[in-house]
Amino acid sequence: MIDLPGLTDLLQESPSKILFLVVDGLGGLPHPETHRSELESARIPHLNALARRSACGLTTPVLPGITPGSGPGHLALFGYDPLKYTIGRGVLEALGIGLTLQPGDLTARGNFCTVDAQGRITDRRAGRISTEESRVLAERLGGIRLPGVHLEVHPVKEHRFVLLLRGDGLSEAISDTDPGRTGVPPREPTALSPAGERTAPLVQAFVAEAQKLLAGEQKGNMVLLRGWSRLPSLPNFCQTYRLRAAAIAAYPMYRGIARVLGMAVLPTGSTFAEEVATLQEHWDQYDFFFLHYKPADAAGEDGDFQGKVRALEALDEHIPSLLALHPDVFVLAGDHATPALVGGHSWHAVPLLIHSRYTRGEGVEAFHERACAQGSLGRLPATAVMLLALAHAGRLAKYGA
Amino acid sequence: MIDLPGLTDLLQESPSKILFLVVDGLGGLPHPETHRSELESARIPHLNALARRSACGLTTPVLPGITPGSGPGHLALFGYDPLKYTIGRGVLEALGIGLTLQPGDLTARGNFCTVDAQGRITDRRAGRISTEESRVLAERLGGIRLPGVHLEVHPVKEHRFVLLLRGDGLSEAISDTDPGRTGVPPREPTALSPAGERTAPLVQAFVAEAQKLLAGEQKGNMVLLRGWSRLPSLPNFCQTYRLRAAAIAAYPMYRGIARVLGMAVLPTGSTFAEEVATLQEHWDQYDFFFLHYKPADAAGEDGDFQGKVRALEALDEHIPSLLALHPDVFVLAGDHATPALVGGHSWHAVPLLIHSRYTRGEGVEAFHERACAQGSLGRLPATAVMLLALAHAGRLAKYGA
Repeated sequence: MIDLPGLTDLLQESPSKILFLVVDGLGGLPHPETHRSELESARIPHLNALARRSACGLTTPVLPGITPGSGPGHLALFGYDPLKYTIGRGVLEALGIGLTLQPGDLTARGNFCTVDAQGRITDRRAGRISTEESRVLAERLGGIRLPGVHLEVHPVKEHRFVLLLRGDGLSEAISDTDPGRTGVPPREPTALSPAGERTAPLVQAFVAEAQKLLAGEQKGNMVLLRGWSRLPSLPNFCQTYRLRAAAIAAYPMYRGIARVLGMAVLPTGSTFAEEVATLQEHWDQYDFFFLHYKPADAAGEDGDFQGKVRALEALDEHIPSLLALHPDVFVLAGDHATPALVGGHSWHAVPLLIHSRYTRGEGVEAFHERACAQGSLGRLPATAVMLLALAHAGRLAKYGA
Repeated sequence: MIDLPGLTDLLQESPSKILFLVVDGLGGLPHPETHRSELESARIPHLNALARRSACGLTTPVLPGITPGSGPGHLALFGYDPLKYTIGRGVLEALGIGLTLQPGDLTARGNFCTVDAQGRITDRRAGRISTEESRVLAERLGGIRLPGVHLEVHPVKEHRFVLLLRGDGLSEAISDTDPGRTGVPPREPTALSPAGERTAPLVQAFVAEAQKLLAGEQKGNMVLLRGWSRLPSLPNFCQTYRLRAAAIAAYPMYRGIARVLGMAVLPTGSTFAEEVATLQEHWDQYDFFFLHYKPADAAGEDGDFQGKVRALEALDEHIPSLLALHPDVFVLAGDHATPALVGGHSWHAVPLLIHSRYTRGEGVEAFHERACAQGSLGRLPATAVMLLALAHAGRLAKYGA
């Protein structure tokens, strides 16, 4: 809805505050035995009570059947058509660790991995080596020199790192070296189009040097690179919606998304309790808070039904603290479903709840997939959620006479 | 969704099989006395049991209020925007009887009809004369000669035939001669645009010759022509979705649709039992089967509520045989509603059911319009069904990082 013609003309000033909680991987699927989803199985009295006095519905992140990554899932919730606007994986990772990217900088998401004597991948994540070990290896790779290109290697978390190349004429038209599976060697990085022909030999040289420098390691004796990308040019969230917007997220990638959209990114801790404390601390300073909750997705990704149930229950305990701030609009949305049954992101519609002075309950008795399907918001594209949030906040004037 | 940018990038290999059953005219409306629709009235225990462990919803074939023909109804289910892609009636009929059309061939759907001494139509279908009688008349018309044009007249079924004109510069911009009602003479075929000006006199000459050749007949003493069309250029279904797709349909038109989309069309008999046998025979050879069930539509067209109920009950008896093949994904959809109350195609939303390992039931207790309206799939455009089928089949990778 970022491209909605005339949106700017409708925006009006308001002292209202919007709290926009994204529960990563919120949606689920029924357990094969109990026939109840994670949300239906969880003891979430505060969320259920809130649903009874909110407007509820289900969002479709991209299109029916399309499973979104974190980027498209969040862009859609913030009103950016995820088929039009994209953020590459490398850029997301780089922004997430606070790198300041310059236009033209080329980035890739890296994994330290383990290969056998024949060069075949035995572990794509090098046994999830610790962030500390990874830091040492990243520093070593940072010493690689390529002709005419400034190079940085930054550790992220565990086996992950970011490769940043700065120079003229670099292109993201380079193939991934990560084959996505074990038992085969990493792929050769090649140009995907003529634009990538200058960049490909640079990347090949980096990979060859990295292999030499890591050769003696037990774990992490090779690298995998994927998601070559440069900083996209996206409409600024704050200017588009005339909001002073801040993001609070423990996990780097979500801070990265917020930063590329132009939100202020508030320093916070690694737990949701710390995120809530950060929110309370800065409550007076912004109109819009993007608050990110990660654990539900993490458990779903692991196929851990009970773990996801517990993550939702843990979230529920924080709901009173959030409501105690008296946001004019409280949005609870998910970027995508991560059903434990699937063990990963999925294409399913995601529960949505909007609470404001205009929502007084509508017969939805609990907060879960089936109940939200009966809610007054119905099914809507995720890109419509921001419009609803603005409307409930009194920030959208009447359209037309 | 054929035009979804990046769809090709998301497609991934899978050994999964999709069984896509189209129940022609599936949707209905409540009987004025019982207030129960055809599906609600039918004894369909297998479909109801399947609905209890499937994802259900309602499809909108084109747009709310728009009643689709068979072409748009099927194109939409296969993911082709029916407002963008069209197949003319003449082409559909021609393909349905196995004609191999060349680019530029002009076709029309013909009816033998009966006119009175004043040339006014008394029966648009010539009393539904037999296919055998029709064949004799068609052969007679096949002897007509037009300057510079190769001409063929092929009998279809009962009073129907196909007129095929082959030559340079033929255009489908010709008006129908069928006025769609009795009591008036057939319309003069005229050019609808300058492109049709060369073709119109040829068609006028054909009609005049046909009238002379049929003058002595009791029934079928005149022809009606409509649906002037040439072979459209549609994206190939198999290439678009990377599926080895086969169609099994007793009725010619649906084989024709499948053929123009590039599906393999399997020879089969005239009953659904024979279609099922064909399916069983070829189960190992394809990834995707379009299986077509006609009787529900035929009864609905006749305004025969009980007949449609029986047709749905007859279908239900075949469901166990279909499930015994263990398709990874079983889709049951309708190309449009054909409520007996309407006595023809209608614009109403159509029940949809998708069964896969990811569907474990969601509280929908039966397979009918009202129950499906409460299903987890909600209302969705028919063009989204293929995306869901591919997602459930594990054939769509995650979109974006």
